[in-house]
Order: sequence, then C-alpha cells, then structure tokens
Amino acid sequence: MHTNIQQISGGITTPKGFLAAGIRCGLKTSGNDLAIIYSQEPSIAAAVFTANKFQAAPISISKQHLASASTIQAIVVNSGCANCATGEQGMLDAQRMTEIAAAGLNISSDSVLVASTGKIGTFLHMDRIEAGINNALSVLNRDGGLSTAEAIMTTDTKPKQVAVEIMMQGKPVLIGGIAKGAGMIAPNMATMLAFLTTDAVLPKELLASMLQEAVNISFNSITIDGDTSTNDMAAILANGASGVVPDESDLSIFQAGLNLVCLELAAMIVRDAEGATKLLRIHIKNAPSQDTGRKIGLSIANSTLVKCALFGADPNWGRIMAAIGNAGVEIDLKDIDVYIDKLSLVKNSRAGVFDQSLAHQLLSANEVELIVDLKQGTQEAVVLGCDLTTEYVSFNAHYST
Amino acid sequence: MHTNIQQISGGITTPKGFLAAGIRCGLKTSGNDLAIIYSQEPSIAAAVFTANKFQAAPISISKQHLASASTIQAIVVNSGCANCATGEQGMLDAQRMTEIAAAGLNISSDSVLVASTGKIGTFLHMDRIEAGINNALSVLNRDGGLSTAEAIMTTDTKPKQVAVEIMMQGKPVLIGGIAKGAGMIAPNMATMLAFLTTDAVLPKELLASMLQEAVNISFNSITIDGDTSTNDMAAILANGASGVVPDESDLSIFQAGLNLVCLELAAMIVRDAEGATKLLRIHIKNAPSQDTGRKIGLSIANSTLVKCALFGADPNWGRIMAAIGNAGVEIDLKDIDVYIDKLSLVKNSRAGVFDQSLAHQLLSANEVELIVDLKQGTQEAVVLGCDLTTEYVSFNAHYST
Repeated sequence: MHTNIQQISGGITTPKGFLAAGIRCGLKTSGNDLAIIYSQEPSIAAAVFTANKFQAAPISISKQHLASASTIQAIVVNSGCANCATGEQGMLDAQRMTEIAAAGLNISSDSVLVASTGKIGTFLHMDRIEAGINNALSVLNRDGGLSTAEAIMTTDTKPKQVAVEIMMQGKPVLIGGIAKGAGMIAPNMATMLAFLTTDAVLPKELLASMLQEAVNISFNSITIDGDTSTNDMAAILANGASGVVPDESDLSIFQAGLNLVCLELAAMIVRDAEGATKLLRIHIKNAPSQDTGRKIGLSIANSTLVKCALFGADPNWGRIMAAIGNAGVEIDLKDIDVYIDKLSLVKNSRAGVFDQSLAHQLLSANEVELIVDLKQGTQEAVVLGCDLTTEYVSFNAHYST
Repeated sequence: MHTNIQQISGGITTPKGFLAAGIRCGLKTSGNDLAIIYSQEPSIAAAVFTANKFQAAPISISKQHLASASTIQAIVVNSGCANCATGEQGMLDAQRMTEIAAAGLNISSDSVLVASTGKIGTFLHMDRIEAGINNALSVLNRDGGLSTAEAIMTTDTKPKQVAVEIMMQGKPVLIGGIAKGAGMIAPNMATMLAFLTTDAVLPKELLASMLQEAVNISFNSITIDGDTSTNDMAAILANGASGVVPDESDLSIFQAGLNLVCLELAAMIVRDAEGATKLLRIHIKNAPSQDTGRKIGLSIANSTLVKCALFGADPNWGRIMAAIGNAGVEIDLKDIDVYIDKLSLVKNSRAGVFDQSLAHQLLSANEVELIVDLKQGTQEAVVLGCDLTTEYVSFNAHYST
C-alpha cells in the first residue's frame, strides 16, 4: 500500500464538513431504517447505478438530480422497502423524499439524492418516511456515521464502514464510506448500496471517472449469486472542506485511497453473505487486460459447480477450467496455470499431480486464495466470491414473499 | 403439432439403414460405456459443438473430420472419460478411436466422428477402448439404439431416445435421436451429447441450418445450472435411405419433426436433472425476436434466486422481474405481464394482487409453467429449467475428484 495512505477508524462523517444520522421510522420490523447524509457545503457528486434494466424509482430520481444539479448536498436513504415496481406513485414518492429533506435543510430538492432498499412491489409508508426524515434532520451530527451504516442494512448482520486518511502536499485528506450487502440471501433485498464522502477538492468529471474505477475493482468485482439488483447504487460526495486541490501527482494517491475504501467495503459485503461459509479471492494474473481478467474471475466466481466444490473443499480444477472457457473472452486456453495459494493444481492447462489432502485443507479455510495465471499479458484482476451452501438454498427457498 | 408428424417408439436405429451397438468396455464402474452408430451408406452430416472455449480433444477431431470429409458414416462415443485437458496425447487418442472404428468398418477415418463424456483430466484406457470398439462393431444391429442410448449415459438415471415418422409426398421419412444429460449434478460429467439420424435426402448446408435451428429451440433453450461443458456436441447423419427428397413445402415439416425430436430429448434431460425436483417451462410471448425471448427465458431459468424460490414454491415475482432486467437485452420494461399457468402475478410490470395459496399450489407441481408476456413483438420462445435444491448443493459439494 501507498505509504501516505492510512486506514483509520470512522466512516462517512470522518471527512470534514459531513453530518449524518440514522434513525428508526418503522419501515423494518426492527432497527434503524432511515438515514440522511449531509454536507455543510454544496458538494461535487458522482454515482454509479445498477446495470439491471428494471430500475427502482429512487434510481431514476437520483439520476435526474445528478444530471440537472451542479452540486449535491444531501442523500436520503431508507431500508425496508425498495420502492420498485411501484409505477408513477413510486416516482412521486421518491421525489417527495428529496423534497421533504430539502425543505428541512433549506436547499433545492435537486441537490438531494435518494436511495431505497428492501422489498420489491410495495409502496413506501410516506407518513412514516416524512416523520422519519424530519426526525433524522433534527439529530444530524458529526458522529452519525455508524447509525447511518446501520440504517441502510437489510439482511446484513453488521454495519459496514471504512475511513482512510491520505496525505497530499503534506496535508491530510479524508475519505469515508458505508455500504450494505449484496444479493446473497434475502430475496428482494439483494441491493448493494455504497455511500462515500471526501473533503478533497475535485472537479465533477474527474470524480466520476475515479469512482467508476474504484467501483470496477471493488463492488463490480464481487459476486454472491450473480444477480444484479434493481436498486444498486454507489455515490460519492466531495465537498472540498480540506482545501486541498490535488495536483497531477496526487491523483494516483487519491485513487488508491478511494480504491482501498471500496475494496474494504466490498470484502465486508462478501464476508457477511449469509448462507456462505467462506470467501474466495480469485487472482487473475498476466491477463491481456484488466477487463478480461475480471470477466474470467467473475465466470469462476459465478459458476454454481465451482461454488459447490468450494463449499465441499473439493479441489475440482476441471470445473475451474470449464468456467474459464465459459467466460466469453478471447484468450488462449492452452497454457494456463491454476494454484490454490502456492499449491499447483493445473500446469499448462493439464491435470496436475498434487497432494489432495493439502488441497482439501487449503480449501477448508475461511478465506481461500485461487490464482489463475493466463500467461498472456501483463494486467491483473482480483474478484471476490463465496461458496454456495445448502443453507443458502434453504433460506432462499423458504422465505415467503 | 403437424398432422403429418407422429411420435413413434424407437431411437437412432429407427430410420432406415442405421445400425448401432452399445457395449461395456470397462471405462465406467458399471454399465455400457462405448457405442458405435453406423450408417450402411455414406451420410450427409452436420454438428453443433460446445461454445466453451476450453474444448476436449474429441471435439477438435470431430470438427476436423466434419470439415474435411464430404460424408460421415460412423460415430464412436465413450462415457467414463471426457478426454479433456489431455493435451497432445488426448488428440492422438481421439484420432486413434476414429481409426480403429474406420479399420473395422473398412472406411476412411475422416468419415468417423468421435465424442467422449466423463471425467476431465484423465487419459483414455486405449487398450479397453480398442477392444471395446471391435466388440461393438461385431454386434452392430438394427435394434442397437437403446444399448447405444445407455452407453452414453453418465449420471443420467435413464436412457433417452425419441423417434418420429413424418409424411412427405405421401411417403414415410424417419428421424431418431438419443441424448445424455447436461450439467446438473456430476462434476466433470456435465456434458450434453445428442446424436440424431434420418433417412431423408438432404444437402449438407440445409441439414446444418436445420440442425442449428432445432438445437437453438431445444438443447440451447434448456439450462440446469448455466454451465456449458467442454465436450457438448449434437450431430446428425442423413443417409437418404428413404429415397424421399423433400421439396420446398416439405422442409417445414422436416424442420418441425426434427424440432420435436430435439425438444423431447431436451425435456428428458431436464426432467432427469438429479438434485432437481421440478421442471420449469418458461414461455416468453410477444417478444421482438426469438433470440431476445430466449435470452430473457435463460436469464430467468439461470437466476439462483428464482431457482431457489421454485424449490420452495414461493411466488417471488420480484426475482423474476429482476432476472428479466438482467437479461442483457434492449426491451421496454414498463409493461410486462407474468403468469403461473393462468394466475396473474404481475400486470404491466406492477405488483399483482393474487391468491398466494393458489400460487403456492401451482408452484408445487412437478412441472411449472411460467408465462412472461413482453407485449412488444410477435415472436416467442420456450426455455426449460429446473429448481436449485439443497440436494444439488450437497451432491456437488461432496463429490470428490
């Protein structure tokens, strides 16, 4: 890691000038379920939205606001209801959430983003939402990061927050983030949400491209069950409160810091995948491009047969090779090496002779490292996945809508 | 169905002029494991091979022979070993299989196709293969279809064979077929093989395009776990022994007959998916194209969450809508209807109010019909899938390579 990047305790209110609050308004059966993230000054903002073509109302409204407003000053989020498949009423409700928050903060509703996560096909309890937003506004504070991380949880078992301090031009700049879990176990609650804050001074286009890069190597490089939700969203606010304007040479430090926040949050999401017993870290080496490497990693991580073999700690390299062949990328498949940690399973795409009991032992760990050496380029990619368990199937079969 | 198409009992030796034999040569722990399909006259041939870029040796050899020879007269197949990830030796072994069969039949090795299914990464016992081929050749007969269907089985619980008789110009033409199961439960034995025979007179290019069409709507429209094997192959031989040359108007009858054979075999494969308890028939209506419909159907059938909900008989329409949104096709998602049989779950992409217990009852049947009306075109597609069960995960986790 960069010597001038340091992970510190904290979350989205760690950067200067950000307040937040997570409270309970009664959308879920228990726990915090509504939150507001607020920047004291107008912020430059960027976001990445779900690739699922069936998109929830808050996704549409947030896209509109991000396109029309030059700055964003607040994000309002609820859990317990996805406000998806709710038609025109859903659009009005999502817009109304931004208006209630904007009125309380005395800002334009265009400068508020909105996100929802929870059950598909039910309408928001707007009376609870309205009371909840006003309640959250009244308790916005500099220590509200954790309560906010809690308020966006659905089936997550623990809140997820990360903060880093980076040094640019001898001055500290802070980046914070929170996230909630992705498509694992809870039907209709498979949404991945991530909110990021920084006090760096950054122009909009640069912020957008840096967020996209960080999302690609983190949230877009994890997979629980291959599903992409209707409500996925990752957004960042940069309020400039540090006063530090990165110069050309600082940008790679900032990118590395942002990557670290997103990678840590992504790993927390996979580790918290209910019904999974272990994390699979797939390292694709010597690929012709990062994108090719990521596609191969995701093909392995999404293979039902590979995931079952991982659950059973079975060194089934044939399934791994078949998944590589199914990745939909143009590569040479004649000369590939596959390892678990340092144990060689496949050499030059041929069956290796290896210690089965050692392989079984390595695959029985909580975190398993799989290395695929393509030997046809200089790029690499890391993808995180997990096993497929009988518990996952039971839970998802017997949950009733 | 076409009034001049009739399903009859039989299989690949039902069409005139075809002999076959399936015997045991000791590659599997029990049962027949080697077969030869032989046409008394040179046949026009066509084949569709796996889309997996990691391909087994017999796939390469069969492609070469199909490209170089103008006619094909025999197919040699073994189960118990996939001859995949076996490098140069594997190529020599696959070629040698065609040579042994060709020598016994006194034909050119170029006119023999070869297929293998079974474990990846082990070499063929060529002594057993050689004895087995010669043994099979000595018992080739007109009633060998069933023993051949048995010899290509791996984890299949029953042999799969179909025959139809079609009337063209007042004369009977026969089509037969056998198949073995697809990527369901047995690791490294996920291969789908189908062999088809007909005594119609058909030119090569036409036969190839008709096979491709039949494969698209059948074997390419079923999915057990989304994996595509290294050894998948569907081949057809047309020996002309009926003497019937289809005229322009007969071609649609022949296509319908071939489609029926392939559809029946495909449904048998899904019904025989071990670890699955029910078949899901997804009917996509009013799609802009067949291909778009098929992609949407496959996205639903491959969704882990949809498959779990089917296992639990849970009418989780939100997962179905999310899977439609994830299909990677450009369609309008605002106005979609979803039904189980005649029960409306979703109307105009909005949550429907429906009888939950009736839905649960319909989803508890052995075969479930899901209808998705896109209302944006005139084409349709049918895709077959199955549920994901705890038994599937247990089996695939605890099988040891």
